[in-house]
Amino acid sequence: MKRTLIKDTVENVGKTVMVSGWVNARRDHGKIAFLDLRDRSGILQVVCTSEMIGEAKDEYFLEIEGLVKQRPERMINKNIVTGTVEMEATSIKVLSKAEVLPFNIRDLKTTLPTLLDFRPLTLRNEKIAAIFKIQEQITISFRRVLKEYGFTEFQSPAIVGTNAEGGAEVFPIKYYDYNAYLAQSPQFYKQILVGVFERVFTITKVYRAEPSVTTRHLSEYISMDAEMAIESWTDIIDMCQIIIKAICVDLEKECGKELMLLGAVVPKLGGEKGIPRIKMRDAQQIIFERTGRDNRKEPDLNPDDEKEICKWAEEKRGSELVFITHYPTKKRPFYTFADPEDPDYTLSFDILCRGLEITTGGQRINDYEKLLENIKKWGNDPKSFEFYLQAFKYGMPPEGGFAFGLERITKQILGLENLREASFFPRDMERIDQRLSVLQPKESFATKAIVGKEKKETKKSKIKKTKKPSSV
Amino acid sequence: MKRTLIKDTVENVGKTVMVSGWVNARRDHGKIAFLDLRDRSGILQVVCTSEMIGEAKDEYFLEIEGLVKQRPERMINKNIVTGTVEMEATSIKVLSKAEVLPFNIRDLKTTLPTLLDFRPLTLRNEKIAAIFKIQEQITISFRRVLKEYGFTEFQSPAIVGTNAEGGAEVFPIKYYDYNAYLAQSPQFYKQILVGVFERVFTITKVYRAEPSVTTRHLSEYISMDAEMAIESWTDIIDMCQIIIKAICVDLEKECGKELMLLGAVVPKLGGEKGIPRIKMRDAQQIIFERTGRDNRKEPDLNPDDEKEICKWAEEKRGSELVFITHYPTKKRPFYTFADPEDPDYTLSFDILCRGLEITTGGQRINDYEKLLENIKKWGNDPKSFEFYLQAFKYGMPPEGGFAFGLERITKQILGLENLREASFFPRDMERIDQRLSVLQPKESFATKAIVGKEKKETKKSKIKKTKKPSSV
Repeated sequence: MKRTLIKDTVENVGKTVMVSGWVNARRDHGKIAFLDLRDRSGILQVVCTSEMIGEAKDEYFLEIEGLVKQRPERMINKNIVTGTVEMEATSIKVLSKAEVLPFNIRDLKTTLPTLLDFRPLTLRNEKIAAIFKIQEQITISFRRVLKEYGFTEFQSPAIVGTNAEGGAEVFPIKYYDYNAYLAQSPQFYKQILVGVFERVFTITKVYRAEPSVTTRHLSEYISMDAEMAIESWTDIIDMCQIIIKAICVDLEKECGKELMLLGAVVPKLGGEKGIPRIKMRDAQQIIFERTGRDNRKEPDLNPDDEKEICKWAEEKRGSELVFITHYPTKKRPFYTFADPEDPDYTLSFDILCRGLEITTGGQRINDYEKLLENIKKWGNDPKSFEFYLQAFKYGMPPEGGFAFGLERITKQILGLENLREASFFPRDMERIDQRLSVLQPKESFATKAIVGKEKKETKKSKIKKTKKPSSV
Repeated sequence: MKRTLIKDTVENVGKTVMVSGWVNARRDHGKIAFLDLRDRSGILQVVCTSEMIGEAKDEYFLEIEGLVKQRPERMINKNIVTGTVEMEATSIKVLSKAEVLPFNIRDLKTTLPTLLDFRPLTLRNEKIAAIFKIQEQITISFRRVLKEYGFTEFQSPAIVGTNAEGGAEVFPIKYYDYNAYLAQSPQFYKQILVGVFERVFTITKVYRAEPSVTTRHLSEYISMDAEMAIESWTDIIDMCQIIIKAICVDLEKECGKELMLLGAVVPKLGGEKGIPRIKMRDAQQIIFERTGRDNRKEPDLNPDDEKEICKWAEEKRGSELVFITHYPTKKRPFYTFADPEDPDYTLSFDILCRGLEITTGGQRINDYEKLLENIKKWGNDPKSFEFYLQAFKYGMPPEGGFAFGLERITKQILGLENLREASFFPRDMERIDQRLSVLQPKESFATKAIVGKEKKETKKSKIKKTKKPSSV
């Protein structure tokens, strides 16, 4: 018999069908037993004898044939998609056994590290799985909007040949007989491709060797990047506004069930006026007036400032997001376009959502000579940028772009506490799937083979910011 | 004035509009000059005076205002989308200059290495850009089909903590104070997620430290991977058939212009009977009968065999693709499902397209005990697989999946000679954007800092297959 998806059982009342799925729960009442069977489409109540189920318990994968029956009115369960029906099993076959679960995965009461140690299992929790259905929808919406606006999608490379922008927060790779690095962003590639397609985007993993364990950072995260030829730098901000609106509208339409399950509501976006746009210096003035905290000379907003200005935006403009624009030139990368009216500040922006930065963007320098000048001014070696610079040497329109942190936007929309909850398989300085201190105990063969003593010393003296993880 | 896209000029005859784009060609006839202006939507002929254009030449990016006029009947150019109109320029503004091109990028007559040295520029060649519009469409079709069939998309991590399957063809990463590796495939993660969503897919970069430079290999390539719970292992093959059909149909519908430009036709798929499915041993018998070449005892098809069986499939079954099934158990990874009727062979398959493997797939072992047994039998350490094994310890349906090599399928559909032509920014043992021998001359500071002598020796003795690149 061909398998019927659980959600389709409601259309098969009075018929015998075959379903399959995991045991989500088992309740024995004397000789009668009730199973909640879970497949990708939903959960179904199955009635059978305890004998038929045998030893099957949570997470066994079963194939069940049985009669689909309408439930009596008083037994209808409105919380599940099949709440009007149940199945009377006629045969049950075990397709895969499960060992005793280490804890109750329906009602998780353990710490995040343990949840992550058992990720293949805990991802089966309904609420955790819902996080990733929402995350998938965010990528679908991002893609849909950009395709509508004529963008071309590409896959950006992750292996790069130079640590072009310098800095310690980069992972080195042993690449044949050469050195290579994991890309910190698709920035150079998306800019190069503006020279080809004018409008491009990529959803790609990027890498930061963050030498600290915070709730807001991952070593490997997903960046939704776009870059576009522009007429005015506000084109870039307008595009972000359109994308965020689309994400929120789509989430309400497509993921209502998941949002409800997680007790989340999409953020308010300021109604017809949209998300407010405010210069960093003006934001600092507002924060000073509201709190007395005087950070008006600081080159950036600190985490408390970010929270405060979001509070202001919600109270005064009905928006839980805010564009902060015109960051100081010195604090931004060499390619950032300075404001012609005030060159100490750039045509750049961050988007804050419920107190946290989720997006960064801005106009870029498209003039070859100016770019070359800035590379030197920022203390970089132009040699390392020759490939990238070709794109500007041979004609590049005014352009700019932005990057959304996928895990961050997921976290902020859902109100998660830790960014790791928004990553299927989070990597940080203490974990790649398993805890590294467990996986690679000190003085293991592998450590000796790959990390020579000489190298360790070199690195230590070079990278001052790096702290050893506490677990070593 | 707001910009009008070039393709929309045909709807603006008699009107003055502003267009912008790159100079694709300039032709001076005395005081009069003709420009071909290129934007993301097409090419437009602009008529003006030589004086107005000034020094602007190929790849300058210009903003031009002018009157759109119908062309006289005899001047109509059917090869371009704006062939019925031209623009009489009233003003021209240079938005970005271009240096003299190193060679004619419209009519490329240089070698592939030079094309790649100048990739940011040569990607602007119409035919090269068309390759990547087609590649993008392949990803769109893959995604569309799998979403229709209830698959969930995820982004698979690229940093992995163990070189789980062993082998030399892996890139080591210095990961804080630990060792990590670049993932050779999303295999384990997609299998884990079958335990959550039953049907999943990812389009992700994967990494192979191929110690040789061939026309069929890249160090970083894009894998389109899917994995699914199944009732029968032929479900997996059926899904591949559906995907390939969709790709071909969509390409003809959406990329007719690009296919024509590249002189490519989508492959024949065997009509109503579909792509033939044939066991490896039967393929060897056919090859023997057709050519007298006796490889009937070999554990795999060699490149000549692959070409010959594709010739057979086209002649006898009207299909330029063929499924080769039932590879020997010993030649496949430890998780491959052995055929219960003949356990020396597996329920696995490759898809060959026009003589080259583009896809590999099969059923996997979903039984925990059997998997554990095989890990040991294949000489691996179960410790390294603990995370992965959780998925099977706690109930996993019968399942399988497949991986399409995106560059390979692009190459075979378009009849490209070298896989590098189907990668925006190909990486191989001699190149990451620039040639590595140029970028990192021997004994550079970086080489000394990252690759200690001690380590080099360790590696040499461990990895016997690695040959030094010829450029060093």
